[in-house]
Amino acid sequence: MNVGDIINYLNEIAPWQYAEEWDSVGLMVGSRNSNVSKILLCMDVTSDVISEAVENGAQMILSHHPFIFSKLKAIDMENFKGEQIVKLIKSNVTVVSAHTNLDTAPGGVNDTLAETLHLINCHNLKPYIPKGSNCDLGMGKIGELLDYKSFDDFVKDIKKNLGIENLRIIGKKPEKVKNIGVFCGSFDGDLENLKSRKVDVLVTGDIKYHTALDAAQMGLCIVDAGHFATERIILHKLKDTLNKRFKELDIICSKVEIDPFTFA
Amino acid sequence: MNVGDIINYLNEIAPWQYAEEWDSVGLMVGSRNSNVSKILLCMDVTSDVISEAVENGAQMILSHHPFIFSKLKAIDMENFKGEQIVKLIKSNVTVVSAHTNLDTAPGGVNDTLAETLHLINCHNLKPYIPKGSNCDLGMGKIGELLDYKSFDDFVKDIKKNLGIENLRIIGKKPEKVKNIGVFCGSFDGDLENLKSRKVDVLVTGDIKYHTALDAAQMGLCIVDAGHFATERIILHKLKDTLNKRFKELDIICSKVEIDPFTFA
Amino acid sequence: MNVGDIINYLNEIAPWQYAEEWDSVGLMVGSRNSNVSKILLCMDVTSDVISEAVENGAQMILSHHPFIFSKLKAIDMENFKGEQIVKLIKSNVTVVSAHTNLDTAPGGVNDTLAETLHLINCHNLKPYIPKGSNCDLGMGKIGELLDYKSFDDFVKDIKKNLGIENLRIIGKKPEKVKNIGVFCGSFDGDLENLKSRKVDVLVTGDIKYHTALDAAQMGLCIVDAGHFATERIILHKLKDTLNKRFKELDIICSKVEIDPFTFA
Amino acid sequence: MNVGDIINYLNEIAPWQYAEEWDSVGLMVGSRNSNVSKILLCMDVTSDVISEAVENGAQMILSHHPFIFSKLKAIDMENFKGEQIVKLIKSNVTVVSAHTNLDTAPGGVNDTLAETLHLINCHNLKPYIPKGSNCDLGMGKIGELLDYKSFDDFVKDIKKNLGIENLRIIGKKPEKVKNIGVFCGSFDGDLENLKSRKVDVLVTGDIKYHTALDAAQMGLCIVDAGHFATERIILHKLKDTLNKRFKELDIICSKVEIDPFTFA
Amino acid sequence: MNVGDIINYLNEIAPWQYAEEWDSVGLMVGSRNSNVSKILLCMDVTSDVISEAVENGAQMILSHHPFIFSKLKAIDMENFKGEQIVKLIKSNVTVVSAHTNLDTAPGGVNDTLAETLHLINCHNLKPYIPKGSNCDLGMGKIGELLDYKSFDDFVKDIKKNLGIENLRIIGKKPEKVKNIGVFCGSFDGDLENLKSRKVDVLVTGDIKYHTALDAAQMGLCIVDAGHFATERIILHKLKDTLNKRFKELDIICSKVEIDPFTFA
Amino acid sequence: MNVGDIINYLNEIAPWQYAEEWDSVGLMVGSRNSNVSKILLCMDVTSDVISEAVENGAQMILSHHPFIFSKLKAIDMENFKGEQIVKLIKSNVTVVSAHTNLDTAPGGVNDTLAETLHLINCHNLKPYIPKGSNCDLGMGKIGELLDYKSFDDFVKDIKKNLGIENLRIIGKKPEKVKNIGVFCGSFDGDLENLKSRKVDVLVTGDIKYHTALDAAQMGLCIVDAGHFATERIILHKLKDTLNKRFKELDIICSKVEIDPFTFA
Repeated sequence: MNVGDIINYLNEIAPWQYAEEWDSVGLMVGSRNSNVSKILLCMDVTSDVISEAVENGAQMILSHHPFIFSKLKAIDMENFKGEQIVKLIKSNVTVVSAHTNLDTAPGGVNDTLAETLHLINCHNLKPYIPKGSNCDLGMGKIGELLDYKSFDDFVKDIKKNLGIENLRIIGKKPEKVKNIGVFCGSFDGDLENLKSRKVDVLVTGDIKYHTALDAAQMGLCIVDAGHFATERIILHKLKDTLNKRFKELDIICSKVEIDPFTFA
Repeated sequence: MNVGDIINYLNEIAPWQYAEEWDSVGLMVGSRNSNVSKILLCMDVTSDVISEAVENGAQMILSHHPFIFSKLKAIDMENFKGEQIVKLIKSNVTVVSAHTNLDTAPGGVNDTLAETLHLINCHNLKPYIPKGSNCDLGMGKIGELLDYKSFDDFVKDIKKNLGIENLRIIGKKPEKVKNIGVFCGSFDGDLENLKSRKVDVLVTGDIKYHTALDAAQMGLCIVDAGHFATERIILHKLKDTLNKRFKELDIICSKVEIDPFTFA
Repeated sequence: MNVGDIINYLNEIAPWQYAEEWDSVGLMVGSRNSNVSKILLCMDVTSDVISEAVENGAQMILSHHPFIFSKLKAIDMENFKGEQIVKLIKSNVTVVSAHTNLDTAPGGVNDTLAETLHLINCHNLKPYIPKGSNCDLGMGKIGELLDYKSFDDFVKDIKKNLGIENLRIIGKKPEKVKNIGVFCGSFDGDLENLKSRKVDVLVTGDIKYHTALDAAQMGLCIVDAGHFATERIILHKLKDTLNKRFKELDIICSKVEIDPFTFA
Repeated sequence: MNVGDIINYLNEIAPWQYAEEWDSVGLMVGSRNSNVSKILLCMDVTSDVISEAVENGAQMILSHHPFIFSKLKAIDMENFKGEQIVKLIKSNVTVVSAHTNLDTAPGGVNDTLAETLHLINCHNLKPYIPKGSNCDLGMGKIGELLDYKSFDDFVKDIKKNLGIENLRIIGKKPEKVKNIGVFCGSFDGDLENLKSRKVDVLVTGDIKYHTALDAAQMGLCIVDAGHFATERIILHKLKDTLNKRFKELDIICSKVEIDPFTFA
Repeated sequence: MNVGDIINYLNEIAPWQYAEEWDSVGLMVGSRNSNVSKILLCMDVTSDVISEAVENGAQMILSHHPFIFSKLKAIDMENFKGEQIVKLIKSNVTVVSAHTNLDTAPGGVNDTLAETLHLINCHNLKPYIPKGSNCDLGMGKIGELLDYKSFDDFVKDIKKNLGIENLRIIGKKPEKVKNIGVFCGSFDGDLENLKSRKVDVLVTGDIKYHTALDAAQMGLCIVDAGHFATERIILHKLKDTLNKRFKELDIICSKVEIDPFTFA
Repeated sequence: MNVGDIINYLNEIAPWQYAEEWDSVGLMVGSRNSNVSKILLCMDVTSDVISEAVENGAQMILSHHPFIFSKLKAIDMENFKGEQIVKLIKSNVTVVSAHTNLDTAPGGVNDTLAETLHLINCHNLKPYIPKGSNCDLGMGKIGELLDYKSFDDFVKDIKKNLGIENLRIIGKKPEKVKNIGVFCGSFDGDLENLKSRKVDVLVTGDIKYHTALDAAQMGLCIVDAGHFATERIILHKLKDTLNKRFKELDIICSKVEIDPFTFA
């Protein structure tokens, strides 16, 4: 099995061409022809993650966030990106990234986030039609809890299900919640759309101050559970999916990567 | 005394023309000719703040964030901005906003943030020369603590001095800190510049995930104390400054506005 | 009955989405939820027209030209637009504008202009397909007089039918005319199209010098009857149309507005 | 003497490089090396004017408005511009145009307009610094009448001095006038600047409806004496100036060109 | 017969609207109404070619390259383009150009190049769908030689068939060739597409250094037989085609034009 | 000695900031901190050149053309650039490129080309002021031969001095030449400037067909001696310069790189 086989399979479950136009996905460093028996899954290809891959003998890293997002005008070892590229190449580790194609794919990050929060009857929060396709994808999801739940209990559930200890709340807390919006990673800021969808609360990450303030004024409630926590849930899902297709492939999820934010 | 007198005085201490090109500053709603005997200072002109002004008999609100940032194509009472404008006009309350001109002015928000954290020997973190001027302003400041201090103690000081209970930390915590960077509101994301300035820690707000991750990889330490907390310290400073110049003016700082984020 | 009912009905007769992309139409100031029993129709929302509405107890003004065309960065009472907005809001008068959607709609301004000049067998001078629709609208109309008429008699008719005393003529006057083009407000300047349509004369307004000169060189004849006169004929038509639908609504056409140009 | 000598002299009195960036000035058709003994001056190079030049034996036409303004992708005899070019070339007539460089030059069109209306103590209505120069030119002029004069008398003077029978008036007529603004051809529409200059009336041409309406609302008074009339006064001035420098040159002003607008 | 008849016929065999958007085609100088009994065909309308047309009594020149490509802001006899236009107009010679519409048309320049090199089973090297059409055209062609041939023999054939003595070779020469790409004039530089098409060699012209270097590194072989030689073969083809349709028309191919490059 | 020392020295003789804005110069792959005892100079970093560097034990390649010109969105070993980067990194070879900063620097490529052709009294063909500097550099040079020389003899000299066997000539050959223009690599196509400089012949490379044709029509003569040959002369000059400054450095010029064009 080689990297190309995995890239092709990812194209089946989350077609590369469905990534947003501004996005950067697919092979980042290395070769489609590299043999792969072990693969490491991660959110971000940090220096620690690269070391982890090397130490574990993984020939390939599959990350959610693009390893090369801004195009490179040089590979300069005096900055961290250049240093990482050199380490990857010298260690013969290939990097592939699946980003917005995976966010919006059926069974992708948004679906997994809804599933993790036990939402049912899910549909798209915002329609997304990739350029040049008539594919019906969605950014964010809306679903229902089985029953009404108090807001405080729902917050406890979020923490438990996403494995976090802290989060931030924006706007007036509803007493009870049932209709839940989710938007993995970082909410796109379209508050008008959010309001028109009449969710009791939106669970997302990476909210900026002015968005928070406008949301509060519009009577919306948002839980910012962090970019990291609302997306990392995809890794175990992806591990299972890949394992079904590539039975002989050894797949590990990074154990060293952590949310860059700590609360104090 | 009328609104125009206050606008003119603000032009002396934080010239309007020194605002960034993308910014919106100055008179937002109302008239330079309105008489003013009472003025309310705030970060943001929310519906609660407008009610507070009206209830307190303030004829003018001076906000830090621009009340009209995106230009208006209509004043539609069915959305909150239109509703606020109608209330302001019917209540004869004039709104003026002083934003990036105040951030960068001597004695402005960045200087006040440095002062609040007891920094000495301050200079600019990043030079800023307003278009068409040869004025030497700065975005962000760098200063020193009187003595080295443990990181944990410094975090306690930040909380105390900014009046907050929670904050977020990014990157590897140094043991001791002395050279401190501050950047009010929201750090502009120029990590290369930050690194070259060799501060032990940067205190700022509103950091996004990818900036946090890059900072951590570059070995930088950032304290995200919140957009609100790192800027609201200007209000009392501004109150004092205005009081010195306009002795008869009754100046109040909003008591109802709060950070839209709460930690849970 | 409220403003929203009238906005919805206008959408039936001249759909808002059919306005040109650069245009600004719909609610300008006020609220869809305001009750309306009396409405004032006008070309332009001038200070005199606002006073007229207030004095006549109209809760709504429906103008042809957009009240807010350039987006507002402030509502400054020291300029006339800000002063007008304040007066409207304090008087609880809502403003709605129907512009290019009404120009091109069936029974709209161009059709009414053709009708006013007694043209028959009318078709579009220039096809106009609103973005994202397959609607077949037209900018300007071409029609026929019942019989050939001398140019001088036709000019007399224009004056009588549009209620004006002066107009301007461009190019060589034909002896007799029958095929007539009309273009309400301000001709779009596409002389090549005009020439290809072989009209004997075009009736329009607001012609600039260089357009006039080119038209004359191309052997075309244009009557500039004024922007005001070639559009204001819609008001009485609109009054009738609205009256049929909203029988209880009191509708008045402005009596104070006049063409800003006087001839001397 | 050849065309180049005249082009060089024009560069002394109205430097070509001082034309606006969007403008087109200088040699339009023909050759700097053509001998010239007779030259025809005109506002616009129409077909009639070309015939007049040929019939009068002029080897050169000097026009105010650019003969080629939109760049040519073909010289097609089936349209009037192509036909004119062919006639010029076959008749060996060279065309040169002096436009915004002449409008703004000392002694140029604006100065001549002020002079024609007997204004004294003139200065610039709007400063104009050509790109890449530190030259202090002006668009439009402001000057004074010797004494206050009734508005109606001033209108009579305008008609007499510009040789016109009709004009259009915009806004509220002042009773008496003394401070007069002039802007040759077509006012640039900057009403804010106009208002700040506190003129009693502006004399200009080619005003569009929306500019007229705004001016009226701002309490300004404008006399639209026509694009043609407010600029054609330069021809005789130019004839004198050229005659002083080129004594042997036979200079005629077009007798066939007329304002494309006639009033009825 | 007049120029318009020929323009209309060209529209049948190589529709004008199929030219690239950046291109300039059709009537360049003169009139559709000019009578034509003799026509000169050429690659480029040089001064020598114009003299040839005049001396041979041709009333029309049909060129492949656009006579006016950059739009003209003046017709200045002191530069060569202006001088040529004057000569054409004084000699009553009309110029028409058929460029990318002819390159890509069936039986056009690319097809003729393939035919000249005796290629069979041809198809498009690169699909080209003119804007607003669903026409299936191609830039460049791929075809086969009847049998494998040594590279050196193929080079000899190219020279003989295109009538040239020198050419330039880029990249590693294959021993034998059969699958041949052709791209008339100047290869568009899309080496990725070229590589994917697996031709043994591409015959084209006007290759720049960096394209050559990249091609060599990608293992491609290109023969640069010159812009002139790879396109001029259309003239005799065009002569035949026009003769069939316009039997009475006297058609000559320029005898004076030569490739501007000579090898030394 | 390390790469940074050489980069710094290059900055003295050809400041990096003087490169054109569109250019890419400086460190391309590797590290400023790498030790260097042997360096290979070349025009282009091809796969052969990389092998040559590795085989010769060079730790650094200094190329004239930028190794990374188009920014990279991935390092994909299945294309040649990715493959080369991997080889460089695995072989610990650092690449630095000095392009337009070296073309225009005193003693740079253009000066060396003039010197190689034995020109004296040289000055700039076209002034070039790098953005944000007041530095007086030039693109291209003009100089004189010691005496007039026949064109054919000069062509022989060019071949001998540049070490080439073939070249291409454009335009009418002058009988004798003395004033010579040179423009290394690829002439920028500004024929108007070239004509105004009145050189007898320009020696340059990489001329495209339409530039050649226009030059011929303007009566200019150009020798296209190839992009490679007109620039590669800098390598030996650069070797000498570097040797003077870094006496212990082993400097070799590539022996494997060749012009990608061969004549047949």
